Order: sequence, then structure tokens, then C-alpha cells
Amino acid sequence: MPDLPDLTATVRFDEAGLVPVVIQDAGSGEVLTLAYANALALQRTRETGELHLWSRSRGELWHKGATSGNVQRVVDLRVDCDADAVLAIVEPAGPACHTGARTCFGAHDRPRVADGSLGPAELPAARLADFEVLPDLERVLAARAVDAPEGSYTAQLLGDRAFAGAKVQEEAEEVHRAAREESDERVDNEAADVLYHLLALIRGRGRDLGDVAAVLRERRR
Amino acid sequence: MPDLPDLTATVRFDEAGLVPVVIQDAGSGEVLTLAYANALALQRTRETGELHLWSRSRGELWHKGATSGNVQRVVDLRVDCDADAVLAIVEPAGPACHTGARTCFGAHDRPRVADGSLGPAELPAARLADFEVLPDLERVLAARAVDAPEGSYTAQLLGDRAFAGAKVQEEAEEVHRAAREESDERVDNEAADVLYHLLALIRGRGRDLGDVAAVLRERRR
Repeated sequence: MPDLPDLTATVRFDEAGLVPVVIQDAGSGEVLTLAYANALALQRTRETGELHLWSRSRGELWHKGATSGNVQRVVDLRVDCDADAVLAIVEPAGPACHTGARTCFGAHDRPRVADGSLGPAELPAARLADFEVLPDLERVLAARAVDAPEGSYTAQLLGDRAFAGAKVQEEAEEVHRAAREESDERVDNEAADVLYHLLALIRGRGRDLGDVAAVLRERRR
Repeated sequence: MPDLPDLTATVRFDEAGLVPVVIQDAGSGEVLTLAYANALALQRTRETGELHLWSRSRGELWHKGATSGNVQRVVDLRVDCDADAVLAIVEPAGPACHTGARTCFGAHDRPRVADGSLGPAELPAARLADFEVLPDLERVLAARAVDAPEGSYTAQLLGDRAFAGAKVQEEAEEVHRAAREESDERVDNEAADVLYHLLALIRGRGRDLGDVAAVLRERRR
């Protein structure tokens, strides 16, 4: 369990004793939910390592995911410059939204059948932001690893490390050539090819970008 | 200018006519600021493509960055499942925080001298989350491109595309071998080497992960 900071003395709670909490996925960077906490919720979060909030509608302490099983392990808690907002960086065990969507803001991943709350028809569609592209690609690869149509290119990459590895090498050679003597557009495209095949190669080994990020973070120290 | 959705009819404003706005960097995924908007601010944001908010302390419309020059171009506006919070995905022209820090939650990038607000001593230090690792690496490379000690390894990579490209190929070969017959740890390390050298190679060409993400997003359609 990470050693989370004690924010109860730092945070400036509002007149209702609450502070807004931005909840963000530690892996993808997606903002999952905006919720609220009081001092007790922050304290319980710190004690358990799992996100606790204050439900304004029910007027009670809310252990996020206690009912659904989709608890959120808290990786870091940060407070903003004027100490009236908290950022909780979490590893969610499942969808963050009561609609079953991965994020409460995720119009682009909203399930087709909503449960009475605002559905896809009422909500503007979301574009994928830059930071969402690689995690989105990883989710696609993970899904394909389970149910790729046999013979599809991605299924081949995921099932054959020698093939995927050879493709990574081939694309590496191409991005090298592009960087030396070709257009920016070619550089971007070949770099995208390296990334795509690299992610497929490591996915075929059961690894992902989070594992690689951990190595880079460790080296950065 | 992106065609932003009109949220004024969708959002459920609070009793003060405000809605909390989570502001997130489109490139790095970092949460920059939590602020508030009223209907007018949402409307101005949509009309101008630049983030407008409502300053609760000054009681006035607040064109973010109008004074400092650090405006934020809005890439997407999203509303959450119960329509009482907005996510603004932005491209900031400069630091988001009045302290000069890149983010209002960024204890790890807080400048050494604060201007009266909570400084580094009072705030708990933040850990880099997974999603921050690659953007952080890119910022390091961008800084090194300007002031790397001559002869340093990174300076060599950034200044010599043939060298950087050859390293990308070498690391591609090594990750291929690792994926076929070596440990998970070796796979993660070699994949990190590919990523590091790939980012250095494209940075030497003035390209970055955002350019590559744009290609992958386009292919995803």
C-alpha cells in the first residue's frame, strides 16, 4: 500500500466540510469521476489505500466500489495550489461509472443501453485526446487477444512473437530511414508503426505500457 | 477551431449557477486545474475556442490566461454521466498555475520560489503516475535538446539521427529476442529502451508523441 499523505490538515474544506476530488486513472490518465470528500473520507482513504468519498445525495460515507466490487486503489493523493481541490490517482478494479462505462466523462465508451441516466443520444460524443490514444490502442489489443478473428493481422501479431518481433525490427529500420531522409509525415507514420507493433509484441507476452512506464520512472529517479 | 458541443442546455448548474470544470492537458493527460464555469463562460468558450471560466473569488467572467498569455485552447468539452461536472481537454500555451507551475496539482514540478501561496515545504510531494512518465521523458528530451552537456549520451542521440536510428534498430532487435526467450523484466527493460530511443530519434526531427498519437487516432477511425 503506498504511503499516502495526510491531507486533512492541509485541505481547505468548503462550508459544508467537503472538498472536490478529481479521480484519475493512474494508467490511462483518463479523468474518471468528479466527486467529493470530507475529512473522514480522506482519513479512511489513507488508512485503507482505497478511495473513500462523501456521497452528497445519500449524505453518507461512500467506499467507492464497495457494492459493485469496482474499488479504486489510490496510488497518489495531491492537493492543488490553493488547497481547495484534491486529485486522487487511482487504479480502478473495474468501470468507474454507475452506467458501466469506464469513465463518467466517457461518451466515447458509453454502453449502448443506459440505466435511466443520460444516454448516448443526449450526450455530445467525445473525441479521443492525445493521451488517450495509446491506452485505447492497448485496450483494443487486449480485446483482440481474447477474440481476434483467426487469421487477422492483429491475431497473428499477438499469437506469434517471432512475427511480431520481426515486424518491430522492420518498422525500426523504416523509422530510422524516415528520420534521416524523409518527410515529417513519414516519420510520424513509421514511429506509429513501431509503437503499434511494439505494443502488440509485449501484449503477446502479457506485458503492457504500464510495465514499461514503471521501468522508465525507476530510471528517472 | 474544433466544433465544441453546446453544453449550456445539458449541464445541471448548482444553486449558484456554476458547474465544476476539470481542466486536463490534451497532450500529457495531466489534470491542470479544477475551476468553475457558468453558462456564459461555457458559451464564450464555445465561441472563441479558448477556455473561459467564472472566477468565484472575483465574481467575474475569467478568460483563462488573458493576462499572462497562457491561454488554453479547448480541444474537447465533455459532461459527466449525471451532467453536473465538465471535463475541458485543453492545449495550454504555458503554465496553468498562478505559481508558474505546469499544473495546479503538480507538487513535483513546483518552482522553488512560490509567491505566497502554499509552497513545496507545505505540500506533500507527488509521485509520477504511469500516464505522466512518457510526457515527462519528452520534456526531459526537449530540455536536453536545448541545453544538453556536449558529449552526453542524450545530446548525441538528439544531434545524430543515424546514431539514434541505429540505436532504435538495435533495441528493436533486443526486445524481439527478449520477447521470444527472456524474462518479463528483460521484456519491460528492452521495450523501455526502444521507447526511449524512438522518442529521442523523433525529437531530433522536431516531432513528438503527440504527432504520433495523431496518426494512431486517425487510423482508429
